[in-house]
Amino acid sequence: MSKIIEPKILKGFRDFLPATEIERKRVIRLLEDTFEGYGFVPIDTPVLEYTEVLLGKGSGETDKQMYRFFDNGKRDVALRFDLTIPFARYMAKNRSDLYLPFKRYHINKVWRGENTQKGRYREFTQCDFDIVGTDCASADFEILMMMRRSLKALNVPGCTIHLNHRGIFNRFLDALGVREQSEEVLRTVDKLAKIGRDEVLRLLTELSSAESAEKILDFIKKEENFTATLDKLERLAGGPAEDTQRLREIYGFITQLGLEDAFELNPSITRGLDYYTGIVFETFLDELPSIGSVCSGGRYNNLAGLYTKESLPGVGSSIGLDRLMAGLEELGYASDKSSKTDVIILNMDGSLVGHYHKLAEDFREAGLNCEVYHETKKFGPQFKFAEAKGIPLAIICGSNEVEAGVVNLKNMNTRENFDGLTLTDAIKKAGELID
Amino acid sequence: MSKIIEPKILKGFRDFLPATEIERKRVIRLLEDTFEGYGFVPIDTPVLEYTEVLLGKGSGETDKQMYRFFDNGKRDVALRFDLTIPFARYMAKNRSDLYLPFKRYHINKVWRGENTQKGRYREFTQCDFDIVGTDCASADFEILMMMRRSLKALNVPGCTIHLNHRGIFNRFLDALGVREQSEEVLRTVDKLAKIGRDEVLRLLTELSSAESAEKILDFIKKEENFTATLDKLERLAGGPAEDTQRLREIYGFITQLGLEDAFELNPSITRGLDYYTGIVFETFLDELPSIGSVCSGGRYNNLAGLYTKESLPGVGSSIGLDRLMAGLEELGYASDKSSKTDVIILNMDGSLVGHYHKLAEDFREAGLNCEVYHETKKFGPQFKFAEAKGIPLAIICGSNEVEAGVVNLKNMNTRENFDGLTLTDAIKKAGELID
Repeated sequence: MSKIIEPKILKGFRDFLPATEIERKRVIRLLEDTFEGYGFVPIDTPVLEYTEVLLGKGSGETDKQMYRFFDNGKRDVALRFDLTIPFARYMAKNRSDLYLPFKRYHINKVWRGENTQKGRYREFTQCDFDIVGTDCASADFEILMMMRRSLKALNVPGCTIHLNHRGIFNRFLDALGVREQSEEVLRTVDKLAKIGRDEVLRLLTELSSAESAEKILDFIKKEENFTATLDKLERLAGGPAEDTQRLREIYGFITQLGLEDAFELNPSITRGLDYYTGIVFETFLDELPSIGSVCSGGRYNNLAGLYTKESLPGVGSSIGLDRLMAGLEELGYASDKSSKTDVIILNMDGSLVGHYHKLAEDFREAGLNCEVYHETKKFGPQFKFAEAKGIPLAIICGSNEVEAGVVNLKNMNTRENFDGLTLTDAIKKAGELID
Repeated sequence: MSKIIEPKILKGFRDFLPATEIERKRVIRLLEDTFEGYGFVPIDTPVLEYTEVLLGKGSGETDKQMYRFFDNGKRDVALRFDLTIPFARYMAKNRSDLYLPFKRYHINKVWRGENTQKGRYREFTQCDFDIVGTDCASADFEILMMMRRSLKALNVPGCTIHLNHRGIFNRFLDALGVREQSEEVLRTVDKLAKIGRDEVLRLLTELSSAESAEKILDFIKKEENFTATLDKLERLAGGPAEDTQRLREIYGFITQLGLEDAFELNPSITRGLDYYTGIVFETFLDELPSIGSVCSGGRYNNLAGLYTKESLPGVGSSIGLDRLMAGLEELGYASDKSSKTDVIILNMDGSLVGHYHKLAEDFREAGLNCEVYHETKKFGPQFKFAEAKGIPLAIICGSNEVEAGVVNLKNMNTRENFDGLTLTDAIKKAGELID
């Protein structure tokens, strides 16, 4: 035997063991079904793209984090670091094959060579959904509803979507004469929860004046309800305009569907990216706000400007699947089944293996997941295997049972036995016990 | 506006448009459900691994095809080029967290910088399933059954699994005294369909002798049925042994489950890789044999020998998803729906948008996929949109309908109208029309 290679994996990358991968697939299917319930369609794009295409107006930071190299054809290529830029490129490239408004979702992995830390990986999964080609309140509202419904599908008992509008904030900054510094103000305000009011006030004073800093902090304070906050924002921003009208329209839909409890107007939510131009939003789990937003996004006025002259306004949101799944696990809402087998056929007699496979097919026909224990062994190791895999039911069948045309069913959790059942009855009983 | 970047993608890589991605997801879900029906569990591994780990005993050819580079931490890394080597590494690394026999499936992308040609891509999807940790006929048979069941789940009307055993062929070559050249003989025999009998005979004669070449071609000829072929192989290989016994045992299961039509003993199937040690198999679509095997594999005696001293025998198979999907499309068994929306709520009146969203939620609650047309427009563009997306049903509802508490339902395919239905009746009718 030649030298053994150490089976190591790269820092920031993960193997998914069965229990984790089963749960990931469960969550992803629920999200897919929810998105399709709203008429969204799936797309996929290459993992590897031309660096020039991915970099677009990327900052130096993104550049440094990219997995970038020359392929065997000397092309400058890189692994995608998000799903937004590939989507913009996709819309520009495939525009003639797509109808507008185009509603897509994309759930897949992205790569960033960041410093690893708890809950941060270099390979992680994003889940993006966008409506492109229309700028109207109905589309904004649909994204918000779909976010709420997605988290409900995962049985998260409470989550609140924090909503704001970038336009109102910009008007307010114009009135204060600090629009030039809007990026820095936005970034500073974003840190409120992290660094506290005093420090934010100090930083804002540096950027503008003590008076403006106080006004900014007044502006971002929530009032007692959605309408009261909106009225204040409208006043401080200089009166009604399209932006406040948009929020009123969305709030109209929210009240019409009786969803007031799920949404909050939060003027401190601004999202750092200069990319957003309309509503912006973040979502927090009521029981675990500390993990931060699990679903965020907003409206932008030009998705694909880097790649096409056609202006494509849109609204979209992204779920950080790894963070969300960590949250569900911490809250005890994650499943940790290490298999999805319902019934195991124990292998009592080597001459009956064909019969065991036949029984298993009959259970499968009835919609139950069923496996045969392959080797003829004593009860002990077979039971141990079934327990390790978490299989709830076992069928025990020797030559006496075959002769009598029956099987014995065992509930592995309660150790209860149901002996001498016909196959039909055993399948029926198994179905009841699984439900 | 700054310069426009051309939205191009790399040669051999693909964007998936909605109709293709919907079909891919449909196929993958059916396969996943089938595999789970047999007690297989999903796993996932990193896209990027240490080159040293991936190369293992890789040939120079694999090396040249790898997407290999140094990451920002100066690690020598590469994109995985199959799912087998990562699985071997995974078993070695995670052995203590896994029970044996371990039955896993893994469906994901792999990358090879091959020359592109029709149906060959540099980014493509593999679908592997293996049973590791046992060497018995029952496990071999389960893999074969699952292959058959997977293709049935996709509604492929006929497919035949061609079966053979590497051990019998090796014994036969020993008897002829050409075992040393077994790799070349195997490779030559593999080309029978491609280059014809005469050319194979010529090549085999070069490798051995004219007499041996004739014997080899006699050996690989199918007889009238499974048993007759097996009897001949046994005789030519020097009598009964474990290998012929294994095939007889498997054939016993096949007859016991009445699946004789689905399997064929084909001595010309040998699979090129020296990795296989037991049964080997390939699967052909009866209606489209020309595309080659859509599902192939075999038994090996040591999966993870490169990474661990523990010997892990196993049996496994792999579906080339891209080839299979191309075959299904060619045969007309692929769906080409460009959306999964059942019902669209047309937008007749801007003041009713909240009501439309409410209606849509009610359809969704009833399990129907439903979307609201976001902008208030004339019928024409809304109909055109519904047709482009292939949505079969539309709800038309203006202020008169809201007042009367009804909606109008339109079958977009037949243009039939069902007017003045209560919401309950409309949902019921829609459900019937979709079925």
